Amino acid sequence: MAMNDNATQTQTIHAYAAQQAGGPLEKFSYEVGDLKPNEVEIDVLHCGICHSDLSMIDNEWGMSKYPLVAGHEVIGRVAAVGPQVSRLQPGMTVGLGWHSGYCGECACCQTGDQNLCQSAESTIVARHGGFADKVRADAASVVVVPEGIDLAAAGPLLCGGITVFNPLVQFDVQPTDKVAVIGIGGLGHLALQFLNAWGCEVTAFTSSESKRQEALELGAHTTLNSRDAAEIKAAAGSFDFIISTVNVKLDWNLYLSTLKPKGRLHFVGATLEPLEVGVFSLISAQRSISGSPVGSPATIEQMLDFARLHEIQPKVESYPMSEINEAFERLKSGDARYRIVLSNAES
Amino acid sequence: MAMNDNATQTQTIHAYAAQQAGGPLEKFSYEVGDLKPNEVEIDVLHCGICHSDLSMIDNEWGMSKYPLVAGHEVIGRVAAVGPQVSRLQPGMTVGLGWHSGYCGECACCQTGDQNLCQSAESTIVARHGGFADKVRADAASVVVVPEGIDLAAAGPLLCGGITVFNPLVQFDVQPTDKVAVIGIGGLGHLALQFLNAWGCEVTAFTSSESKRQEALELGAHTTLNSRDAAEIKAAAGSFDFIISTVNVKLDWNLYLSTLKPKGRLHFVGATLEPLEVGVFSLISAQRSISGSPVGSPATIEQMLDFARLHEIQPKVESYPMSEINEAFERLKSGDARYRIVLSNAES
Repeated sequence: MAMNDNATQTQTIHAYAAQQAGGPLEKFSYEVGDLKPNEVEIDVLHCGICHSDLSMIDNEWGMSKYPLVAGHEVIGRVAAVGPQVSRLQPGMTVGLGWHSGYCGECACCQTGDQNLCQSAESTIVARHGGFADKVRADAASVVVVPEGIDLAAAGPLLCGGITVFNPLVQFDVQPTDKVAVIGIGGLGHLALQFLNAWGCEVTAFTSSESKRQEALELGAHTTLNSRDAAEIKAAAGSFDFIISTVNVKLDWNLYLSTLKPKGRLHFVGATLEPLEVGVFSLISAQRSISGSPVGSPATIEQMLDFARLHEIQPKVESYPMSEINEAFERLKSGDARYRIVLSNAES
Repeated sequence: MAMNDNATQTQTIHAYAAQQAGGPLEKFSYEVGDLKPNEVEIDVLHCGICHSDLSMIDNEWGMSKYPLVAGHEVIGRVAAVGPQVSRLQPGMTVGLGWHSGYCGECACCQTGDQNLCQSAESTIVARHGGFADKVRADAASVVVVPEGIDLAAAGPLLCGGITVFNPLVQFDVQPTDKVAVIGIGGLGHLALQFLNAWGCEVTAFTSSESKRQEALELGAHTTLNSRDAAEIKAAAGSFDFIISTVNVKLDWNLYLSTLKPKGRLHFVGATLEPLEVGVFSLISAQRSISGSPVGSPATIEQMLDFARLHEIQPKVESYPMSEINEAFERLKSGDARYRIVLSNAES
């Protein structure tokens, strides 16, 4: 057990909260007690806005409690640590994503799959999140950000980035694989960069003609029009792995047909409508369909190191934290390229 | 190249054919020329009846041509081989399943996944099959049956058996896994035996109270009623792997919920209705859905050797080949436990 100097821990956190479903976001302060033994207090430098922040503010999933402080793509500095925390020390640059704690006891936690812990705590569900000057979380969920990462742009890696990076690790995607990304937005634009650096031949499916050129610049070797069934049909049997980042309903059987034998169609975008998939397409070519959520802390750190080496970074539009409502309007416009980050003035 | 004595190759094969969709099966002889360089001629000793034989006879899949000789679970002896065949010699005991040839050139063939070759030839689609005194096939698709296998019962291993064995190899099922089988029929009763010998803890889902005890005797450690939603709900998070052998529509989201994180629901039964699956259930616990067809020749030989070691054998009801129509009536009754085999008198 390390003896830490916790003189800097705060009693009051100054945040922006929704007081009811649909917002707006208003200044909101809340009192915090002493740090728990395994907790960390983080000075928020930057915090990305993820679409799930909006879903929670709007109570789309029916589990929101108000006042609600969203924000779960935090880049910050450790301000103080609880008495049982030794891996993290005040002053270290850290990140905090969707999860702010794990049970630590279940089979998933014991085997390094903390992100699959069914009792994991979410930064913006169980706690108040990162649209604030400070945020607290269990040390187990806080990752160290390596030197060489652009902190002002890195926030979206903590949720959007790990969501598309983790499947490459989980499903053993090989550099020799042919991979496609469906949807070139907040998640997709990171997937293209990761996959290009991973060594794969990368195809971007996009319905937006204006994003075609950008997709190529982000790392795609080729693009296909996701609204052109004939173009997709012509790509039959092409891909080892497809990652879908969209949350709309597409003709999934058509996309399945573009997989090679043994190929996988992987979902990280939470389409609400059920998938309607023909069994024959799975059986005839041993294809798989799957999904996954974010990643474990160890995989997040692996991702940050990979991003550092390959100079992968989110394309962001930046707003001061005080302009949070303007930033959310920009998010709702759907025009942001590709992710929005809020920054505290002091950083 | 081996010089083989092909004096025994026939000119006429005596079979049972459907002359039109729906049967009945009538005596039918057809002329064959000299064996092609890579072909093998097999004296049929026994041939299992698979449900897909009936589907082809009834033209359920719209690709049947008449006269149609079904039968693709052949156990026999090599009668003659083409001049380029050296691995197989007259007199050897062999098996022939769903596939009777592969292109040999595609990526699947090159990497040992011949069963995924999209140009693979089917024993009962491209050729006349095993409900006959003899059958021919490319040597690449003919497997050697090891000593110690009960030939009279082994036929169903060549299609039903490999269909449920192959996924254990393909998806790296571990002896420490908890595995469930949906549907205890021709395929399921073999899956229970293989999984038990594989070391797994095995659960049988069955809607038939009468099959409960039989499932336990076949290798299941426990059973669940596949029509009791409450019983299935109580098994939430239990299984690493579920193999579905049924071709009816079930509440697949309910079955998905019985998978552990990272679990897989695998289809070998060709449900015609599309799967309706919630993406959230896949994403939240990194679950997969997949399917697969039969297996490669090397995996079939691996299966036969595993069956020999563990004394795994299909439970069959036997009919002489001449009673083929009675045997099909029995198949249609749905009462056969669990598979039907036709035998030629001379064996």
